[in-house]
Amino acid sequence: MAAAARAALPRPYLPLPFSSRSSPSLSFTPSSTARLRAATSAAAAPHPQLVTTRLGDVIEAQQFDRDALNEIFEVAREMEAVERGSHGAPSRVLQGYLMATLFYEPSTRTRLSFEAAMRRLGGEVLTTENAREFSSAAKGETLEDTIRTVEGYSDIIVLRHFESGAARRAADTADIPVINAGDGPGQHPTQALLDVYTIKREIGTLDGIKLGLVGDLANGRTVRSLAYLIAKYQNIKIYFVSPDVVKMKDDIKDYLNSQGVEWEESSDLLEVASKCDVIYQTRIQKERFGERIDLYEAARGKYIVDKKVLDVLPKHAVIMHPLPRLDEITVDVDSDPRAAYFRQAKNGLYIRMALLKLLLVGH
Amino acid sequence: MAAAARAALPRPYLPLPFSSRSSPSLSFTPSSTARLRAATSAAAAPHPQLVTTRLGDVIEAQQFDRDALNEIFEVAREMEAVERGSHGAPSRVLQGYLMATLFYEPSTRTRLSFEAAMRRLGGEVLTTENAREFSSAAKGETLEDTIRTVEGYSDIIVLRHFESGAARRAADTADIPVINAGDGPGQHPTQALLDVYTIKREIGTLDGIKLGLVGDLANGRTVRSLAYLIAKYQNIKIYFVSPDVVKMKDDIKDYLNSQGVEWEESSDLLEVASKCDVIYQTRIQKERFGERIDLYEAARGKYIVDKKVLDVLPKHAVIMHPLPRLDEITVDVDSDPRAAYFRQAKNGLYIRMALLKLLLVGH
Amino acid sequence: MAAAARAALPRPYLPLPFSSRSSPSLSFTPSSTARLRAATSAAAAPHPQLVTTRLGDVIEAQQFDRDALNEIFEVAREMEAVERGSHGAPSRVLQGYLMATLFYEPSTRTRLSFEAAMRRLGGEVLTTENAREFSSAAKGETLEDTIRTVEGYSDIIVLRHFESGAARRAADTADIPVINAGDGPGQHPTQALLDVYTIKREIGTLDGIKLGLVGDLANGRTVRSLAYLIAKYQNIKIYFVSPDVVKMKDDIKDYLNSQGVEWEESSDLLEVASKCDVIYQTRIQKERFGERIDLYEAARGKYIVDKKVLDVLPKHAVIMHPLPRLDEITVDVDSDPRAAYFRQAKNGLYIRMALLKLLLVGH
Repeated sequence: MAAAARAALPRPYLPLPFSSRSSPSLSFTPSSTARLRAATSAAAAPHPQLVTTRLGDVIEAQQFDRDALNEIFEVAREMEAVERGSHGAPSRVLQGYLMATLFYEPSTRTRLSFEAAMRRLGGEVLTTENAREFSSAAKGETLEDTIRTVEGYSDIIVLRHFESGAARRAADTADIPVINAGDGPGQHPTQALLDVYTIKREIGTLDGIKLGLVGDLANGRTVRSLAYLIAKYQNIKIYFVSPDVVKMKDDIKDYLNSQGVEWEESSDLLEVASKCDVIYQTRIQKERFGERIDLYEAARGKYIVDKKVLDVLPKHAVIMHPLPRLDEITVDVDSDPRAAYFRQAKNGLYIRMALLKLLLVGH
Repeated sequence: MAAAARAALPRPYLPLPFSSRSSPSLSFTPSSTARLRAATSAAAAPHPQLVTTRLGDVIEAQQFDRDALNEIFEVAREMEAVERGSHGAPSRVLQGYLMATLFYEPSTRTRLSFEAAMRRLGGEVLTTENAREFSSAAKGETLEDTIRTVEGYSDIIVLRHFESGAARRAADTADIPVINAGDGPGQHPTQALLDVYTIKREIGTLDGIKLGLVGDLANGRTVRSLAYLIAKYQNIKIYFVSPDVVKMKDDIKDYLNSQGVEWEESSDLLEVASKCDVIYQTRIQKERFGERIDLYEAARGKYIVDKKVLDVLPKHAVIMHPLPRLDEITVDVDSDPRAAYFRQAKNGLYIRMALLKLLLVGH
Repeated sequence: MAAAARAALPRPYLPLPFSSRSSPSLSFTPSSTARLRAATSAAAAPHPQLVTTRLGDVIEAQQFDRDALNEIFEVAREMEAVERGSHGAPSRVLQGYLMATLFYEPSTRTRLSFEAAMRRLGGEVLTTENAREFSSAAKGETLEDTIRTVEGYSDIIVLRHFESGAARRAADTADIPVINAGDGPGQHPTQALLDVYTIKREIGTLDGIKLGLVGDLANGRTVRSLAYLIAKYQNIKIYFVSPDVVKMKDDIKDYLNSQGVEWEESSDLLEVASKCDVIYQTRIQKERFGERIDLYEAARGKYIVDKKVLDVLPKHAVIMHPLPRLDEITVDVDSDPRAAYFRQAKNGLYIRMALLKLLLVGH
């Protein structure tokens, strides 16, 4: 959202990270559902006094402080009830709002979850599955000019782009909110939010958890963003388990040190699994290895989450994965209740519903 | 729909083919429209007692017995009034429901008719025009994993896939209904349903009809599925009229014999046309002939439906075609009232509306 | 719309260009908003007496006379209030209507603006981003057959095609309205309408304006259509400013002469800018120059709209551009209030809302 637009907002604009709310953070109890229903019907008719905070844009995971995360997670939790109620009496929270999904590279999973989120809240969608033809590559138009046109047709833009920093440029141009749905090797903040939300939802807390990050820790923006976000909580312990060629890079280790987060590297997945609350497995990405197929094959087979991992994993712990998975988690793990990765994907819907609601009509 | 999901259904799950209804099959009279309106407004508010039967999935034409077909056709007939009433007071039967069209190969005609069907009933749509990037081909994800993700974002999945059997695998995985919109050389059950519905709608009956199947009988899954379905009715007579290189295969002939359906082969289209209620023409598919363009050219010109066919065709009879057509029906036939192929395409809308209603909220 | 369909219209069909309305043309005053709200709620329930005129199809810019243009512009102006009111109480003017965007070549900008227009009026959309697979090129089906199928699934077709004349053929086939969203080198009438509407909206009048057309005047269908339309007004003066290789062609000059429109050619952009109400800049299209990159480079740098143009441009004047732009308008012009090109793009939304309303439910 451009500075001029922020200035024009009818009530005090709260810069990111947005300020803590005056009421205490709500716990995830059944009563929040009842509050939600009230808030939902109120939002259908405009009750501006309910809009206590207003996100500007969602550009990078680091923009959120703990209070902001708490508010997003609280609204995401409420969204579960909104989704469950869709069939009988669908939500009208975002009725009359139009979201443009401007995807310069295809990402069906991310696009569908944003579009489902908008529709579950009663909003409408303009889809662009492959906007490259719209871009400088095709006719030479700048991203900024494209944004200025599309913002005339919609109320919020969800941007997927192949260039790092594109989301920030779009947000600086637009007078409407922009959500970064992944900009190249840069950020994918809604993935990071749904990861942290899943840990909270599955384990019940974020402070004090022990987290094993497994697989490609060098290239995956997922685990890097997760490390940034989890560092905002207390008494975190992180174990890095990865083949040597794709070890976690020093910038993250330095950041964790600066935040006082304990971490260690290990080559023993079973031992790590026996101590963790969360095992976060990732895919070894073949395309990162170029012609060194031998290195890729060696790396991908090294740390597999299988029945042996389940045998040592604590009863309360969970296994996560950003998906898609190949064989780094064996399919016989799927039926174990601790396999949380499809619930994690579903949480992407709730997080995106929460963000759309917060960005467009506030809490 | 996975077995676990079936077990969780709130009322007795009726396995496919679904059981006969206790009330007698409704005839297609104007009064059914009035009943429909009542049912329609009732469905907007949840009245579970109206849900008498519930389809699980739609995977193959053979899964339906006569009672099931009758119920589907009855609801399809009601859908004509629902569609006509769209502008004044659009249907809310599927309000708050979300359909994902997961198309691993493009098929604009089929996709548009499903999406129109959902929208005419007040439902919403998530579109994936080319989901191959989502598939094993692109990143190595299995169809099962994709289905587990997409079912988290939607209430029903319409799957088009390039592999025979894909729809069954998807249905075995999903906890929500799956409709097969064509899986490679396998099945395309909604096409078969709309074909049989069109015969009933145009001729008024299915028992006792004489049907001429013309063109490519070897490769077209359309005519093969139609032969399977029509065999469920009494006193059927089928004529096969095709170039030698694309004759009907023995498996279908054996099946018809086992069901006591009379059939014969003929090389005289005019003679067949003079005796039939329905002439079902199909396209000779060039791609089936490889480099033998000479054979293709000979085959495609052999049996053309033109004015000469109209001259001998009974007044009450109709000409059908699954579309697209090239020149196997000449355009001067289009203006004859017996040219039913565009009405047939339109019936695809009603059949798909009926299936969506039956799968999601029941009759 | 096919002749048979026109004959079946419930009230007198007014052939294009549609006749003048009996009431005087409404001026663009705030009170029109109040009238609009009344009309809007009335249109939700069917009040046929409000339908005073009914467009059949939108095929080419020349089909509209001044009265028709006035009515379209009046409704477009009303659409600004409809759009502003979307969030609180979205319009239901086109509720239950279904628009098919049948695009045989991609044009994201045009498609999104049509789809936004439909949605802002409460209507629904079937999207085909690349319908070529649907076309004769792919399976040999004629455009006419495709139209006959798609019209069964929708209430209006927006067609983008690569062949000149395709929109007329579609309209002659369909029983529902067709809007031409560009047919190859032929017409793009909604662009021409939004251009003229922008002049009226920005300058306040169309009679008596001085218009500078700059850039590629030989190949751009935009400036050619604009010249045709603006010739319908009084006391127009047009200046052509273009590199020699892309000069305005004689057919347009002859047409302007026949209509008594004054025009002259100039090679002095600054002098022209100092006298004009509107400078309409266009992009020099590289693809028109084939291998003569040298000619392209010479042409594209010749007439740039920059700060020097702003210095001499009258205070009340505006700069327009159909977009996308490369560097023929420098970005430092964007912040000048006379830079109207993004407002012009937005006007495309209002014009398309107006056309959809007029075609589907009348004024």
